Amino acid sequence: MSKPAPKKVVLAYSGGLDTSIILKWLQTEYNAEVVTFTADLGQGEELAPAKEKALKLGIKPENIFIDDLREEFVRDFVFPMFRANTVYEGQYLLGTSIARPLISKRQIEIARMVGADAVCHGATGKGNDQVRFELGYYALEPDIRVVAPWREWDFKSREALLEFAEKHQIPISKDKRGEAPFSVDANLLHSSSEGKVLEDPAVEAPEFVHQRTIAPEDAPDTPTIITIAYEKGDPVAIDGEALSPAALLTKLNQLGHDNGVGRLDMVENRFIGMKSRGVYETPGGTIMLAAHRGMESITLDRGAMHLKDELMPKYASLIYNGFWFSPEREMLQAAIDHSQQKVSGTVRVKLYKGNVTIIGRESPNSLYDQDLVTFEEGVQAYDHKDAEGFIKLNALRLRVLAKRDGQKG
Amino acid sequence: MSKPAPKKVVLAYSGGLDTSIILKWLQTEYNAEVVTFTADLGQGEELAPAKEKALKLGIKPENIFIDDLREEFVRDFVFPMFRANTVYEGQYLLGTSIARPLISKRQIEIARMVGADAVCHGATGKGNDQVRFELGYYALEPDIRVVAPWREWDFKSREALLEFAEKHQIPISKDKRGEAPFSVDANLLHSSSEGKVLEDPAVEAPEFVHQRTIAPEDAPDTPTIITIAYEKGDPVAIDGEALSPAALLTKLNQLGHDNGVGRLDMVENRFIGMKSRGVYETPGGTIMLAAHRGMESITLDRGAMHLKDELMPKYASLIYNGFWFSPEREMLQAAIDHSQQKVSGTVRVKLYKGNVTIIGRESPNSLYDQDLVTFEEGVQAYDHKDAEGFIKLNALRLRVLAKRDGQKG
Amino acid sequence: MSKPAPKKVVLAYSGGLDTSIILKWLQTEYNAEVVTFTADLGQGEELAPAKEKALKLGIKPENIFIDDLREEFVRDFVFPMFRANTVYEGQYLLGTSIARPLISKRQIEIARMVGADAVCHGATGKGNDQVRFELGYYALEPDIRVVAPWREWDFKSREALLEFAEKHQIPISKDKRGEAPFSVDANLLHSSSEGKVLEDPAVEAPEFVHQRTIAPEDAPDTPTIITIAYEKGDPVAIDGEALSPAALLTKLNQLGHDNGVGRLDMVENRFIGMKSRGVYETPGGTIMLAAHRGMESITLDRGAMHLKDELMPKYASLIYNGFWFSPEREMLQAAIDHSQQKVSGTVRVKLYKGNVTIIGRESPNSLYDQDLVTFEEGVQAYDHKDAEGFIKLNALRLRVLAKRDGQKG
Amino acid sequence: MSKPAPKKVVLAYSGGLDTSIILKWLQTEYNAEVVTFTADLGQGEELAPAKEKALKLGIKPENIFIDDLREEFVRDFVFPMFRANTVYEGQYLLGTSIARPLISKRQIEIARMVGADAVCHGATGKGNDQVRFELGYYALEPDIRVVAPWREWDFKSREALLEFAEKHQIPISKDKRGEAPFSVDANLLHSSSEGKVLEDPAVEAPEFVHQRTIAPEDAPDTPTIITIAYEKGDPVAIDGEALSPAALLTKLNQLGHDNGVGRLDMVENRFIGMKSRGVYETPGGTIMLAAHRGMESITLDRGAMHLKDELMPKYASLIYNGFWFSPEREMLQAAIDHSQQKVSGTVRVKLYKGNVTIIGRESPNSLYDQDLVTFEEGVQAYDHKDAEGFIKLNALRLRVLAKRDGQKG
Repeated sequence: MSKPAPKKVVLAYSGGLDTSIILKWLQTEYNAEVVTFTADLGQGEELAPAKEKALKLGIKPENIFIDDLREEFVRDFVFPMFRANTVYEGQYLLGTSIARPLISKRQIEIARMVGADAVCHGATGKGNDQVRFELGYYALEPDIRVVAPWREWDFKSREALLEFAEKHQIPISKDKRGEAPFSVDANLLHSSSEGKVLEDPAVEAPEFVHQRTIAPEDAPDTPTIITIAYEKGDPVAIDGEALSPAALLTKLNQLGHDNGVGRLDMVENRFIGMKSRGVYETPGGTIMLAAHRGMESITLDRGAMHLKDELMPKYASLIYNGFWFSPEREMLQAAIDHSQQKVSGTVRVKLYKGNVTIIGRESPNSLYDQDLVTFEEGVQAYDHKDAEGFIKLNALRLRVLAKRDGQKG
Repeated sequence: MSKPAPKKVVLAYSGGLDTSIILKWLQTEYNAEVVTFTADLGQGEELAPAKEKALKLGIKPENIFIDDLREEFVRDFVFPMFRANTVYEGQYLLGTSIARPLISKRQIEIARMVGADAVCHGATGKGNDQVRFELGYYALEPDIRVVAPWREWDFKSREALLEFAEKHQIPISKDKRGEAPFSVDANLLHSSSEGKVLEDPAVEAPEFVHQRTIAPEDAPDTPTIITIAYEKGDPVAIDGEALSPAALLTKLNQLGHDNGVGRLDMVENRFIGMKSRGVYETPGGTIMLAAHRGMESITLDRGAMHLKDELMPKYASLIYNGFWFSPEREMLQAAIDHSQQKVSGTVRVKLYKGNVTIIGRESPNSLYDQDLVTFEEGVQAYDHKDAEGFIKLNALRLRVLAKRDGQKG
Repeated sequence: MSKPAPKKVVLAYSGGLDTSIILKWLQTEYNAEVVTFTADLGQGEELAPAKEKALKLGIKPENIFIDDLREEFVRDFVFPMFRANTVYEGQYLLGTSIARPLISKRQIEIARMVGADAVCHGATGKGNDQVRFELGYYALEPDIRVVAPWREWDFKSREALLEFAEKHQIPISKDKRGEAPFSVDANLLHSSSEGKVLEDPAVEAPEFVHQRTIAPEDAPDTPTIITIAYEKGDPVAIDGEALSPAALLTKLNQLGHDNGVGRLDMVENRFIGMKSRGVYETPGGTIMLAAHRGMESITLDRGAMHLKDELMPKYASLIYNGFWFSPEREMLQAAIDHSQQKVSGTVRVKLYKGNVTIIGRESPNSLYDQDLVTFEEGVQAYDHKDAEGFIKLNALRLRVLAKRDGQKG
Repeated sequence: MSKPAPKKVVLAYSGGLDTSIILKWLQTEYNAEVVTFTADLGQGEELAPAKEKALKLGIKPENIFIDDLREEFVRDFVFPMFRANTVYEGQYLLGTSIARPLISKRQIEIARMVGADAVCHGATGKGNDQVRFELGYYALEPDIRVVAPWREWDFKSREALLEFAEKHQIPISKDKRGEAPFSVDANLLHSSSEGKVLEDPAVEAPEFVHQRTIAPEDAPDTPTIITIAYEKGDPVAIDGEALSPAALLTKLNQLGHDNGVGRLDMVENRFIGMKSRGVYETPGGTIMLAAHRGMESITLDRGAMHLKDELMPKYASLIYNGFWFSPEREMLQAAIDHSQQKVSGTVRVKLYKGNVTIIGRESPNSLYDQDLVTFEEGVQAYDHKDAEGFIKLNALRLRVLAKRDGQKG
């Protein structure tokens, strides 16, 4: 409130109605110079219109930034996260959460380049994304001025917003007149839908909310079988064809889409304290989760695997809550990455009407290999009798307890 | 070796060839009085033949114990485990592991009843089950003499075993002459297959190893939708029909079977230190895992849920490794059970060609309920402005770090 | 801001200057009826003056609550916490943190009794205590109106506060005219000092900040040796004399005080995101921590102990952050309490110039007892040869790894 | 048993009676060529006599290895462990455990150099050390033949051993005729005493078992104050004097010794399943533990510190159990080391009759620094009002719970 007005603001700008209103509001409310930043994270929309709209709204050409961040997104954010087999609350693949730190990072970079004193995002005041954006901003540029219009402005209703838009000649497409039946976020990893028609968790999600996948019922009657190659924990090729990170995920998305793979309907716990219901579609990510586990199953030692499994829930919460740029996330990443040096090889995956099944795994680094476990005769071979001592000493403390405590039951 | 010979032994007896050979070996090797214990854990075999065979092998009628343990198995072992959403190494539902402590417990109870000084099982020296059985025995009866024939006897080959069987007139069915293409364990929760044709993890598991499920490809083209009711974390009814634990799991198994649900092909890490490949079928359990998570999603607080998720990997390892009767498993159970008091309500589940999808959740204890989260006007309602303070204080330490460490990248 | 004014407020009232100002401010700012609640938590101050002051400030007799909560404090808060060997950031015994939930609880109980719509505390806006008080209030009475004067009022300086006090005839003792050289919180478990003369963490804490302990240098030259008896994880007697929880802790405090035991000078991390430096004196608690570990060392199984050690940091953070009344704290407590059933016996403790040394432990439930670990000859005795199998199977996965990875270094 | 005889064995040789007997036994039992390896780990014994004895027992000069490993020990094992503030079961500084992997590593290196097929150690069959040595051997050289004489030979009594010694002209010093009143292990980090006079945990450890420290009662009446400088988590100088790792620990040991610092009398849980009582003296290590925590308290972020605290118990168990050379220990080390980049500065430590007190901390990387936490006016300064939103959103889930669950109590 008594904060000084921002002078030059880097706005995460989609080109849509809401961020266009924000753009105009920044100009009128603060008389601020606005710099727009529009990123291609694989959301599936063209970026050219965003540029045009920005120009129309009076943004100077040198203040318009359009970036294709897809490769960086997959390589530096999605892949590291998948090395940990990350799921939030047992299920969610964190498609929205993992995109936020990259947007924050790029906004801060642009702010430095153009000498802006503020950044601005279009996330609402009841969600997780405001937290994720702003933790990212502050972690990278601690004195930055953050503008969060949805928490600041006085518009009391959708009508008031539309009125403001009309007054400032922001074009409103017909379908934006009424309220949307649900809201959507999308990037190369997933699309999410929530709100309105999805608000009652007792009611099945309607088919029309889905955008990235066909229904399992509509998928082909014959399975699709693919081979994914891994190097040091990351997928690098499909069916022998080496692909860049973004290209690989794009291809897996198509394969998942076509086979009805990757839908999730869940009620989750937001960082800000309430439960919400979301429908997620993560076709390629769902395949990657299964494939990575399959690859690890023959290349990763038990001790490493179990430690990873124990650390994962915390790691997932950190990402969900917006703490990507935190020392503890980096510490966990160091541990996880250390474990992936030998996670290389190939996994065969069967896709069929929503199912992802690992049907084969091979690796030059296999710890399963038959020859490997057969030790030199007489010296090292597995001796069945070893098991007795192993059991006896594992049992020792339990026996002492039983002697003390007497018969149970 | 220099252990005294057991005098009276309670043998976990299936009635099959292997445990019949063990039975005879106990008699001939140790001149021991053998007490057979055959349990119905829902493995799908009749128990009458086991009784006949035992009689034929000279076991006194009062030394033959046949128990139907299905209700106890599901109520006291399976359900408590599912309250924790337990999976081992991200995937395995622990169908074999969870049955072992009950068998151990019952064997010890019988040993006390009949005054036996020893117990005996038919698990091999390279597997997990020997550990699970024996940790159970020792935890309950610390001075019991454990006989583990596969680690003790001198038979060097399958041929030697069969020769011994023939010599002692143990009937050998034709299909047991050669080596089985894979070995099987089954109970009401699952069936597992491993060995021989499954040994190469690069090669897809053949369709014929599956016993509890039809292939997704063979399942009906239309979904089956059911409603499961929960009380305090345990399922109690299907489509409004109250069912006992074993009856409920039996019904879910049938539903899962018919819809190709619950297959898993994985390479896992054994407690005794090697990797092995198994094919598991857990039709009802797979449905329960999804349904329980769905039920918890609206009835369990975030703090409780995340703590459960963090504790689960350790809890799963304890069960997998055979530490059911350990103080630490009981401590974890106390924490988990404490969380389940309000996990009641209904979940709607869609089964379709291998997929289990939660499509609705309802509960009188819902923490999601819209009315509930709307607080008294003006006093408590969610204030968007609260988010700013929440973010600012969560960010504070990150900002201090950023000031110290300077610009990253 | 636009919150409705509280009508009847239960104020946590110490009788000191600050809470007297708050009392008057509630009356003048909100025209609210004030109910004072003054608790004896063992802070070492008489309560009678608080009553008199409240009367003088116009509080109706029936609105003055004075409670001796010492037994409840130690029995239901301190002892459960010590069962977990709780330390925050490796050192801090949580003396302030553990008192807050009890005050919150009692304030809410009084609010219900007198029909108050609001509660009020005197904690500042930069500390942890505001969080602890308010999380307690909200967890117990979700719609309560919370008044936090230090975050709400307009006084810009100490002078403005004193002016307000004078204007309203609140007596100001001479030593309160200037700013205190440090601030203090105290209860039966500890006293803490922070601020001003302690602000530079490079500078040694002056001797005069200490209140509960003499310096080790000033303690007697001969040790004091005591025996503490435990039952189910809680101390119940000293040197054979059974004592109530509060009486026992009072006695330990005296013993600790006299021997210079329990001082801690540390920099800690507050929940609200900054570091602060505190000097803590926890004489009795320091003895209890050592004694409880000593008692557990012979009565607690390894599995239980290690699980407790792994859970403790999270449990400590929950208490530090104010989440005593949370499902996850209760879950952890359930696990911890489950482990304490056999933690009974006696511990001999030597106190000497700041040192607390466990010099003997005895228990009817000892798991160490020599006879206990000597098993029946020939059957169960510890066989050195068992160790070989134990080692071989624990080594198996490491050997497989070594074979795969080749020579290290 | 049916293992092939070792041909050339690298023996961890102390020069004492027991390992001399082992040396001779290897020669007589297996007709093996023996290579002796004697390390200086700071145990405080001269190595020259070991060489002479080995020669006397017929070892070829080229088969005698004498290594000063003190610097490597402290730099590569002790320091990394102290970065984690490692204590086992809340107290033990792991002085014995941390030395074993280095001995194993060096033995394997020598085995490779001299072409030995076997290694041999003198640890008994009831302790942890056999496990630690052998897990180290196997992790580094999976096919190595391990000889563990105490588990293999037929000597039934001390007398039999002495008889064997006499028969083979191994000199027996007078004090070795009878059984020692306790046994000792020592290195630069600590000395441990256990057995015989220490076996009853109810009885105080006699003063004469202590070797590394004087009693607090005998220490000077005036404190010693030192300043320790840290770089990236490791101590590098005392009172301004830069010291090598081993020199620094040697100096701290002397300081600790002189001030009665670092005694511990505890009952611990061995990996092999039993409880044992040990008296440990870790003078320098006790100082380092306190100093490192002090250094971290101003330089380490809360998130990093709490994660470290949560990981530590597992890390400690891994070292205690002998898993230094395991992937999971290395993963944890990667996380820990990542956190230490800024843990530099100085700590002032007061030593006084057993007490170690941190009385000052300074660092160019301080996160506590007053200037640092004062943000640019008006934009970023800590706003007391932020706390309200922080509390409200942290409370939200608890309020929803309270609304559902109704009044407690």
